Amino acid sequence: MNLTGQMLIGGQSVSGTREALHAINPATGQPLQPGYAGGDQAHVEQAGALAWAAFDAYRETTPALRAQLLETIAGEIEALGDALIERAMLETGLPQARLQGERARTCGQLRMFARTVLAGEWLDVRVDQAQPARQPLPRADLRQRQIPLGPVAVFGASNFPLAFSVAGGDTASALAAGCPVIVKAHSAHPGSSELVGQAIVRALQQCGLPAGIFALLFGSGREVGQALVNDARIKAVGFTGSRAGGLALCQTAQQRAEPIPVYAEMSSTNPVFLLPAALQARAASLAQGFVGSLTQGAGQFCTNPGLVVAVQGLALEQFVATAAELLQHSAAQTMLTPGIWAAYQDGVDSLSRHASPVASGVLPTGPNQCQAQLLRVTAAEYLANPALQAEVFGAAALIVQCRDEAERLQLAEALEGQLTATLQLDDDDIALARSLLPVLERKAGRILVNGWPTGVEVCDAMVHGGPFPATSDVRATSVGTAAIQRFLRPVCYQDLPDALLPTALRHGNPLALRRLVNGVREG
Amino acid sequence: MNLTGQMLIGGQSVSGTREALHAINPATGQPLQPGYAGGDQAHVEQAGALAWAAFDAYRETTPALRAQLLETIAGEIEALGDALIERAMLETGLPQARLQGERARTCGQLRMFARTVLAGEWLDVRVDQAQPARQPLPRADLRQRQIPLGPVAVFGASNFPLAFSVAGGDTASALAAGCPVIVKAHSAHPGSSELVGQAIVRALQQCGLPAGIFALLFGSGREVGQALVNDARIKAVGFTGSRAGGLALCQTAQQRAEPIPVYAEMSSTNPVFLLPAALQARAASLAQGFVGSLTQGAGQFCTNPGLVVAVQGLALEQFVATAAELLQHSAAQTMLTPGIWAAYQDGVDSLSRHASPVASGVLPTGPNQCQAQLLRVTAAEYLANPALQAEVFGAAALIVQCRDEAERLQLAEALEGQLTATLQLDDDDIALARSLLPVLERKAGRILVNGWPTGVEVCDAMVHGGPFPATSDVRATSVGTAAIQRFLRPVCYQDLPDALLPTALRHGNPLALRRLVNGVREG
Repeated sequence: MNLTGQMLIGGQSVSGTREALHAINPATGQPLQPGYAGGDQAHVEQAGALAWAAFDAYRETTPALRAQLLETIAGEIEALGDALIERAMLETGLPQARLQGERARTCGQLRMFARTVLAGEWLDVRVDQAQPARQPLPRADLRQRQIPLGPVAVFGASNFPLAFSVAGGDTASALAAGCPVIVKAHSAHPGSSELVGQAIVRALQQCGLPAGIFALLFGSGREVGQALVNDARIKAVGFTGSRAGGLALCQTAQQRAEPIPVYAEMSSTNPVFLLPAALQARAASLAQGFVGSLTQGAGQFCTNPGLVVAVQGLALEQFVATAAELLQHSAAQTMLTPGIWAAYQDGVDSLSRHASPVASGVLPTGPNQCQAQLLRVTAAEYLANPALQAEVFGAAALIVQCRDEAERLQLAEALEGQLTATLQLDDDDIALARSLLPVLERKAGRILVNGWPTGVEVCDAMVHGGPFPATSDVRATSVGTAAIQRFLRPVCYQDLPDALLPTALRHGNPLALRRLVNGVREG
Repeated sequence: MNLTGQMLIGGQSVSGTREALHAINPATGQPLQPGYAGGDQAHVEQAGALAWAAFDAYRETTPALRAQLLETIAGEIEALGDALIERAMLETGLPQARLQGERARTCGQLRMFARTVLAGEWLDVRVDQAQPARQPLPRADLRQRQIPLGPVAVFGASNFPLAFSVAGGDTASALAAGCPVIVKAHSAHPGSSELVGQAIVRALQQCGLPAGIFALLFGSGREVGQALVNDARIKAVGFTGSRAGGLALCQTAQQRAEPIPVYAEMSSTNPVFLLPAALQARAASLAQGFVGSLTQGAGQFCTNPGLVVAVQGLALEQFVATAAELLQHSAAQTMLTPGIWAAYQDGVDSLSRHASPVASGVLPTGPNQCQAQLLRVTAAEYLANPALQAEVFGAAALIVQCRDEAERLQLAEALEGQLTATLQLDDDDIALARSLLPVLERKAGRILVNGWPTGVEVCDAMVHGGPFPATSDVRATSVGTAAIQRFLRPVCYQDLPDALLPTALRHGNPLALRRLVNGVREG
């Protein structure tokens, strides 16, 4: 393990000029070495210039070379071995098995995007051939492909130090699209960030690609992040974090001379609807599944089930009683950072002002530990207090008790945008579910039946996204192969001679792409 | 021809409450009857409520029914016959043949989107089947489709009273996506708008669809437009018009409690690069093609070639001399509105402050006539005066003379975002073109060789879009089948029983869609 406490710009370790930030071991509250001196505007300028200089060459690399880069990064991350896992454990308080799983997910994600690049559907090649004899006017030869937007700024998330961080989903999909990436590391895990950054630098070297394709910057305040989003050479932003943080980046991006897309994944309470037949048949097992999902990883997931919606009655009371019993025995778990722990306390306090306590988890025994909390309100109270809609990041949930199905539907309509919405149902609930579905489709990016929202599969069909404020762009997903589309734009080529056409659009179709030609999809 | 001077809300003619606006016959300067009283916030509220109420039903219509609607609208527009063409001629000053062609384009576009809806690729169905035995964790059944965003506000353009107006590309693609549409008619052609609006109302009736799927509002100030974009039920905006108008809508949309996408197509000077071998070989014919494209329709096209970039020398002087000669004989043509005419005068005045006159067209003989203008500057002057980058809407163009190819490349890099960029080249220019192409790809949505940018084919491969300020969203096109994607978002369904799945996602694939299943594209 070779931590320098430096940033990575142009393949070189570069010392920051601002005050050093130190990761805090949340299990002890103690700072970790080395310190990471923050960058300044000159570092952003340097990284931006290198990314820009590398962009035209990188975006025309062959699919094979780009896939090789993604696979080499995965291999280099694996080659970091236990050192990465050990450092990430120290910086995040997350257990070893979780971080090993997250590393597998991160590397699997890089390899998935390698396959996506090779498959070539992201190029969305469309060809309308010339019709010189068409009346009243001839048709030109028109060909469309997707090209990358340009250098992308990625802001690492605190809660996935590998899978949503330096080489996480945003970086992997941007590199797959052909965009250089400048990562602003999350201050909670700078050492893990540096190790993974070094892995990317090595992979670029091995693939013979310009070092400017990647940079890793540190900074504890807003200076680096704001400078990055304001840099004219940055053409898109990926962010996972708080609503306030995401909105600040959106505002900066909109106020630029050239506004740019921001993909901010921000906040979601992930409502779970317990339908009557299911609740009647299996209140206790539902409670068990719910508490398991709620308390997993101290509830530090974007898709944590923070809201349970049910109609009042004995079955609900049985669910509540079982959930309360289980929660009371739920051990306190170390949270990611002192800041997240403090925000969790504030969030629970805010819920408590409007909702009644149901149960609390085991009392914390060390610093920064999350004591799980379950509260309840009536639907009328929930509807009357918009503050109750705010996400509390951690193992806290609110049970909302509706008078009847009409009030449940009203509540569903009043929800803000969500990453997920879940239906717990039995056969007799199907008709009711059918009436809720149209509302949930308008509210969420992913709809689950008889599952729990934590656990986000990395695959073609996944949507990790949703209406505002779940994300800043409802048209996008930040997980799964469709995430590559966030960093692409279409360009049309009219009557270009074959010698000037990009390879993907040449008449002989040298990349063997499945094109749309004169309105017909090639087999 | 049955013009009521009323708006269309819920299939009914509704009188406005604000001051009546009158179209002006630009050829005479005289107002046309009837007056169209403007709507107010209550009308927006009413149209918004109806659109919202119709949304869930409309978005689940079968592809067949939605295609039928689009085809019926086309048929109803054609059934308006000469009345529509005659009214549009009065309101716009455009000649009969042009408007007949535009009507054909409009109806062809509606029918193209009908075919697109039926083909079903827009649904982008992705299926990842359950793997219950997978280790370490089972995989759920995950299915993704695209659903429409919600009701869309469409702002008609002045320069295409049919093809970019009430039933134009924005409306057609939004209806194809499954979005209700509320059109704010352009004040320049309210009569044509009402006629087309009535055609849409009739089509909805014939298809047995809710009247709330479409509304047509009038208003001379910003009240109706701003209220529309601020309405919480509106989920996207389509706009074609000025940079100032587009930016105002973007700002409003961003400041909503729930920000929404705005697709504003705003401004472009459409640079044409005359490469040396082509210029040497055919300066006179290039000048002829250029002046033809520049003066067509009084230059009132978004893709009008307003900028010619060449390296200094005898060949350029020959081009300039021929273009000047042709332009001097170019007849003055009536512009669309007095406002557009006045803006053209201002734009030419502004260019004249920094550029030297080359030639002017024939002097106007009537009101609101556009006198074509050709001016020239050196590249150094162009680079020093950002005001010269502003689009002048009409038949005015600027020739920029570069010292050498290095300066031309520098100028290309300094350009703002464009809808189009054109290369005039011969075989000996290919190497030079190859060096310019990467820059132009970053600057424009469409790149042409040896053509002229006016004339936008409606097809799969077209991109009518480009980097800011050409449009507000570089990821989109407003012409061609890909325009449907602007109004869609992905939703993932996890472990839904077949009875709850949308038809497109059912296990038996009843719509016979070409899905992506477990990473493999179905044949």
